[in-house]
Amino acid sequence: VTTNPRPPHPTTSPALRSWIETANDPAGDFPIQNLPWCVFHNPDDDMDVVGVRVGDRLVDCAMLHDAGVLDDDHHEHGPVCDALTAPDLLDLAALPRAMRVALREKLQAFLAEGAAGGQRARRLREKAVFAVDEVELRAPMERVPNYTDFYASVHHATNVGSMFRPTNPLLPNYKHIPIGYHGRASSIVVSGTPVVRPSGQHAPAEEGGTPTFGPCKLLDYELEVGAFLAGGNELGSPIPLAHAEDHILGLVLVNDWSARDLQKWEYQPLGPFLAKSFATTVSPYVVTPEALSPFRCGAYERPAGDPAPLPYLADPANEQTGGFDITLEVWLASAEMRDRGMGPVRLSRGSFRQMYWTLAQMLAHHASNGCNLLPGDLIASGTVSGPERDARGSMLELTWNGDPFATPPKLVPGTDRTPIQLPTGEARAFLADGDEVVLRGWCEHPTFRRIGFGECRGVVAAGNHRT
Amino acid sequence: VTTNPRPPHPTTSPALRSWIETANDPAGDFPIQNLPWCVFHNPDDDMDVVGVRVGDRLVDCAMLHDAGVLDDDHHEHGPVCDALTAPDLLDLAALPRAMRVALREKLQAFLAEGAAGGQRARRLREKAVFAVDEVELRAPMERVPNYTDFYASVHHATNVGSMFRPTNPLLPNYKHIPIGYHGRASSIVVSGTPVVRPSGQHAPAEEGGTPTFGPCKLLDYELEVGAFLAGGNELGSPIPLAHAEDHILGLVLVNDWSARDLQKWEYQPLGPFLAKSFATTVSPYVVTPEALSPFRCGAYERPAGDPAPLPYLADPANEQTGGFDITLEVWLASAEMRDRGMGPVRLSRGSFRQMYWTLAQMLAHHASNGCNLLPGDLIASGTVSGPERDARGSMLELTWNGDPFATPPKLVPGTDRTPIQLPTGEARAFLADGDEVVLRGWCEHPTFRRIGFGECRGVVAAGNHRT
Repeated sequence: VTTNPRPPHPTTSPALRSWIETANDPAGDFPIQNLPWCVFHNPDDDMDVVGVRVGDRLVDCAMLHDAGVLDDDHHEHGPVCDALTAPDLLDLAALPRAMRVALREKLQAFLAEGAAGGQRARRLREKAVFAVDEVELRAPMERVPNYTDFYASVHHATNVGSMFRPTNPLLPNYKHIPIGYHGRASSIVVSGTPVVRPSGQHAPAEEGGTPTFGPCKLLDYELEVGAFLAGGNELGSPIPLAHAEDHILGLVLVNDWSARDLQKWEYQPLGPFLAKSFATTVSPYVVTPEALSPFRCGAYERPAGDPAPLPYLADPANEQTGGFDITLEVWLASAEMRDRGMGPVRLSRGSFRQMYWTLAQMLAHHASNGCNLLPGDLIASGTVSGPERDARGSMLELTWNGDPFATPPKLVPGTDRTPIQLPTGEARAFLADGDEVVLRGWCEHPTFRRIGFGECRGVVAAGNHRT
Repeated sequence: VTTNPRPPHPTTSPALRSWIETANDPAGDFPIQNLPWCVFHNPDDDMDVVGVRVGDRLVDCAMLHDAGVLDDDHHEHGPVCDALTAPDLLDLAALPRAMRVALREKLQAFLAEGAAGGQRARRLREKAVFAVDEVELRAPMERVPNYTDFYASVHHATNVGSMFRPTNPLLPNYKHIPIGYHGRASSIVVSGTPVVRPSGQHAPAEEGGTPTFGPCKLLDYELEVGAFLAGGNELGSPIPLAHAEDHILGLVLVNDWSARDLQKWEYQPLGPFLAKSFATTVSPYVVTPEALSPFRCGAYERPAGDPAPLPYLADPANEQTGGFDITLEVWLASAEMRDRGMGPVRLSRGSFRQMYWTLAQMLAHHASNGCNLLPGDLIASGTVSGPERDARGSMLELTWNGDPFATPPKLVPGTDRTPIQLPTGEARAFLADGDEVVLRGWCEHPTFRRIGFGECRGVVAAGNHRT
């Protein structure tokens, strides 16, 4: 019997209940065991504040700190005070991990059923707690310092490779390197922000011809998981794999919107650029490593014949518990569906446990050349696709590059190249204006409370296109 | 006779002289016509301040503002005050361009020969002016919000393409798209910062073999010009070419250090990542568009047969004056050369006027999909190489990938694949520990004062390599 190197954190004990009744719903995403960090607009004080979500409520952490609930010492100018009175999670990410864990424990104590009452506590329960429907959520980071996007699903890489390089789908480096590239940080937006359809260059119709400039015709989503980073490292000092997870503030859902036609024409030889930089959507709740601790799983089981990771990307803890068992779904609702009062339809369901590389491996690789990672940086996993057809995390894969604009059209009914049928009779090979994409993610376990990520939503808005 | 659409700015009049005598040296980089923005540590106040360089002096702009020299209204809490009392140039970059131009004019008036005297002015001339040798320069931006690296020299792209894709050196998109990719912002450092040799994965010796992890063996520099951005655009709103230059705060020299062996193995299919993210060095002086106004030149003259740029990348002003006629040099001094008191040797000399795409085209393209550019963002040009052998802006090109570690060695005396000979008898195919690379840049014109960029320096430090 091996000892679990990463036992569930005590704050995830399933016995804990909250006086916020909606937190005790077993089907809910946000029990008192979750307590994800977020940022919301406190309408009473007219300012953006650090919060946690519990049940259908948001709790203003700055106000709790002010009332002395979160910090025994009640420092007015310490790092905890600064982090909680900031307009986003950047300073929280810069705290030592132990301080965040201590805060989490005190938040949980305040929110727990049977917590000490008294008039002051009762008043605070009213004043610092908001219904989520009545306030606006903000992005976890006002400005993400750096954004890196990986490519860690071997299923996704193989699918995409098969379409564009049929003879050579998976490149020789894939199973040795957690492939990644720098993404655009400025265009990261929070769930609910409309995504304007980009314009850009389209490849010439024939070789040697002239490209055209116009609206993207092959707009896609990509289902990803992101990690906001904490701590960081000095330039020139790598982060060993064993310490990589100390640099994770928490996880979010990421929609890496992609303009496939722009990408195909621009990406050689230096990688995706404008095909991605028009928008990347993140979910507002940063789910902590502590909340996720019951849902750790082994790293990807490499099939026989696959190479072992190089030593700097290998250790037993990573192999045994480097993964996160998160169920992930993509849902779609067209404008017509919403007009007719229909809910979204599910396009896919997959699991984050199927990634070829773990987040810890991505982090250790990223810093292996001495690159300095900063608190608040976002590292996304790349599209999460599983081996099954309905576990493909992008429309490109679901319709197998079913380009309806190609001559002849690439949509071939009866094959993989089939458009997605919506209940209105509409069909999709790629996204249409007005389409809303909704990502969902959660963890379940027979003996623990469900931990959810909430939703990552975005509606495609028509662009104001110049020619 | 056509009218020059971009006449030299009045602040570049060659008749202007400064009471700082070293500014009047005709061979100097920093006459009163230049006045580049910078950040330095004021040792008296023990803080980082916004400054300008003139002659061999640095002027503390915060102090001048405090004394009422720069702002007639002398607002204590206005945007100019905030920008000048900030610890870097970020807030200055967020000002409307007209405010920066007004500041420049007032700085020039204060520094001009014959400027109003009086006891107060005399005291300020002492207190706010520092010898550049006695203070430390800081990076223009403490934290660059976003960094984008282009690939705008057709000579560089053709050289590199010939080495790695001999049958297909220049890809079909090159003459239509200003190719670029997102770089790593966190590892941008200022001139003088040592650059630690990175470790990383090296390709397997034979196909299907196992890669190794270890110190980079093929470390290179890349000579580039960068633009720090001002203003910016809203997400979803492109910047038309005609307005692109309003978004330039000023230009710097950039050394885009490159680990060629890491790059070769990692860069497919998503572009360079760890091969670049260990360090990027910028020069400390941000040379303004006004100072550079006498040195505008036409865009690259596309040879017959090359396609015209698409309409969003074309206008007469760009064609006639979109370029900058900046002479650029790379110099190298090994540790042994420095020990023996030898100065650096020149490796190359080229000109920024030979770029296939102008900075305005890069900017307009970057924002053409609605990507939001932010004040303080850095856009680099890509390696500046000319058509002549001695105008190649990287060692890779100078020694034609003269990989001494290849089997058989790729150094072939008598061909392009010749190592660089140093006066100590040392030879270089790529950079050795202790090597110092110095980039220099300046503009000259018969009827205007020389405008220089100063130097962009970096010494290669041995890495502390794990295996």
